[in-house]
Amino acid sequence: MTLKNEIRQVARKAREAGYVLANLPTSTKNAALEEMAKALHQSASKLKKANAIDVTAARKAGLSPAMIDRLTLSESTLRGMANSLKEVALLPDPVGEVSKMWKRPNGLWVGKMRIPLGVIGIIYESRPNVTSDAAGLCLKAGNAVILRGGSEAIHSNLAIGEILQRVGNQHGIPAGAIQMIPTTSRRAVEEMLQLEEYIDVIIPRGGEDLIRFVVSHSKIPVIKHYKGVCHVFVDATADLEMAQAISYNAKVQRPGVCNAMETLLVHRDIASRFLPPMAEKFRAAGVELRGCPESRRILKFIKAAREADWAAEYLDLILAVRVVAGLEEAIAHIIRYGSSHTDSIVTGDYTNAQRFLKEVPSSTVLVNASTRFSDGFELGLGAEIGISTTKLHAFGPMGVEDLTTSKFIVYGSGQIRT
Amino acid sequence: MTLKNEIRQVARKAREAGYVLANLPTSTKNAALEEMAKALHQSASKLKKANAIDVTAARKAGLSPAMIDRLTLSESTLRGMANSLKEVALLPDPVGEVSKMWKRPNGLWVGKMRIPLGVIGIIYESRPNVTSDAAGLCLKAGNAVILRGGSEAIHSNLAIGEILQRVGNQHGIPAGAIQMIPTTSRRAVEEMLQLEEYIDVIIPRGGEDLIRFVVSHSKIPVIKHYKGVCHVFVDATADLEMAQAISYNAKVQRPGVCNAMETLLVHRDIASRFLPPMAEKFRAAGVELRGCPESRRILKFIKAAREADWAAEYLDLILAVRVVAGLEEAIAHIIRYGSSHTDSIVTGDYTNAQRFLKEVPSSTVLVNASTRFSDGFELGLGAEIGISTTKLHAFGPMGVEDLTTSKFIVYGSGQIRT
Repeated sequence: MTLKNEIRQVARKAREAGYVLANLPTSTKNAALEEMAKALHQSASKLKKANAIDVTAARKAGLSPAMIDRLTLSESTLRGMANSLKEVALLPDPVGEVSKMWKRPNGLWVGKMRIPLGVIGIIYESRPNVTSDAAGLCLKAGNAVILRGGSEAIHSNLAIGEILQRVGNQHGIPAGAIQMIPTTSRRAVEEMLQLEEYIDVIIPRGGEDLIRFVVSHSKIPVIKHYKGVCHVFVDATADLEMAQAISYNAKVQRPGVCNAMETLLVHRDIASRFLPPMAEKFRAAGVELRGCPESRRILKFIKAAREADWAAEYLDLILAVRVVAGLEEAIAHIIRYGSSHTDSIVTGDYTNAQRFLKEVPSSTVLVNASTRFSDGFELGLGAEIGISTTKLHAFGPMGVEDLTTSKFIVYGSGQIRT
Repeated sequence: MTLKNEIRQVARKAREAGYVLANLPTSTKNAALEEMAKALHQSASKLKKANAIDVTAARKAGLSPAMIDRLTLSESTLRGMANSLKEVALLPDPVGEVSKMWKRPNGLWVGKMRIPLGVIGIIYESRPNVTSDAAGLCLKAGNAVILRGGSEAIHSNLAIGEILQRVGNQHGIPAGAIQMIPTTSRRAVEEMLQLEEYIDVIIPRGGEDLIRFVVSHSKIPVIKHYKGVCHVFVDATADLEMAQAISYNAKVQRPGVCNAMETLLVHRDIASRFLPPMAEKFRAAGVELRGCPESRRILKFIKAAREADWAAEYLDLILAVRVVAGLEEAIAHIIRYGSSHTDSIVTGDYTNAQRFLKEVPSSTVLVNASTRFSDGFELGLGAEIGISTTKLHAFGPMGVEDLTTSKFIVYGSGQIRT
């Protein structure tokens, strides 16, 4: 069988499984998720063996320690995977919810019923825990999933997928509900991205290059975010202690993630009071500052920021700093250089808080809180399948409900159109 | 300036206008819509002159009478365009709605605020009234719009667009809010489809070829429907008089539109009672029937349906007819041959009604009502920008609310992540 036919067969099987999944009782899905969690736990040594093959190959290939860390299935990663599945089982089932219903003048009752998206393709890199996390969320929302992980994690991913499939089939989940693309060739991805009749959405998770490749080649709608260039704006009326704590947390607590702060904007009126002690805290944490001319008049020792710094997603202990004249200039900066991801204001001013919330066109906008809360779990979605900075369908962190859509249902009594 | 730069400049201007539009007061948008309606009315003779150039060229080029009919700006088309703008002014403004808000254990208040999509690209054919209808809906939802009509309607579209722009600018709408692509080259469309940094969504309206072209070339998310293969299933317990009225209405009232019935499914138990009088009514209306072997044993004079008939969107007075053993077979047929558009059951059975609503995975599913109600206005959305059979973002008829998205807003009091 050609690669093209092989991928097509996987996708067709997923489509058929999707019709069954859409009508499965909640209890069947939850029981399967709990059994999958148990099975991952029980198969720890088998999974670690498969993972060791990938890790050894990665070391030989000279991958960075950070990459190898993300690839490794430690005890705690495995425990986290099992716990995620258990938590997903506890979430409410979004399928079947009729959020509203209204009556038309002709007596038709019209409602919107939540239904699964159908078939979801996940294309991801490195972290093998995405395999079970994504499969669990897709299953809960009644979707079939096609998983295509990176070549560096192929043994780990196939081993995890095999367990999920086997346990699923033993507990009423149709074959085809969870499928892995077993080859590492990039052509397999390209073939997958053509199958719009079988796959409803593609969610790529990984570096910007991977995501741009997927967007360029896909006929299927893609939910994605390219990067997170997140800002904190410290307003003139900010509680400076609070502003310091929030700025520090947003930059330092976990610098390598997309909701970490990359640029700090400071109101001119408090810059000379706020910046010196803030810079001292950052210095102690090993953060390199790159500043605008005005901030460098206050912090004489820091590097000058170049134009490229304002749009940079460092994912590292580096921070761009800019002094601004006020709210308008801060918002204009965020619109110009931001990535529609997450931005926060620290302020004591009611009007500025409300204006920032309304006028900043990012997917998560916060007042007096760290950008690090832009996360499906932290915002209360229960779990997260990814973050979207595309405005279509979902904008911001996506939970299990974002893996569904709504159809119109209409109760009539013989109405015809005149 | 090259074509590429010209299109890019249009898109960039739209993006900038979008930021202004997102924060315009509702009253400004409504006043502009009302003034636009007046101006269309007052410019009727000018618009008809521009339209005459297009119609003459279309006649010379030998376009079909149906195409010329769709192209022509009659008195009633112009009145309809003005009325649509007035009706859109009366709709509630979706922007700014906070549909829910919840409290996290750490005291954060999290909500979802409805915001405009940003910039919408509309690519359409023939009907010049789409120019003002789409512009009005986009404006109401706070979006900038880039309109690219077909070459056959270029003079009409530019004349309409010029009026909308002029009146908009006089009434507080930023330049760039409504823009027309002034060239008819297909390359202009291709360039437009690359500009994902400036355009948030593309809505193509027209024939399947146009839509497939757009999907293949777009880096920007596309909301679309390829076709409508809509079904009516007459169940064994149907009120046969109601079933006849609904089937007749679904096929005959307006056969050329996407929500007209293309295949009639009839339960075996009532086929011999239902089909002969139904066929007689269809014959009188000039409908050609194409049947399965079982239906042809009842209706001996009708043509045999071929495999291709079950998937056909005739958009004409032709109807495929199939006798089925019951609900399961009807649903299986719809899943296999349908287009996820609109399907209806006529039944007196409670369980079958509920099962049909739940199990048919189409964007609009009806009980005891004509498929012709699958329409934004008829379902109560106030107006319609299009119909989506893609499940992402919107599924089914789309109203003004579907031209918005939601962002997370978070009210904090100094929270940091630990």
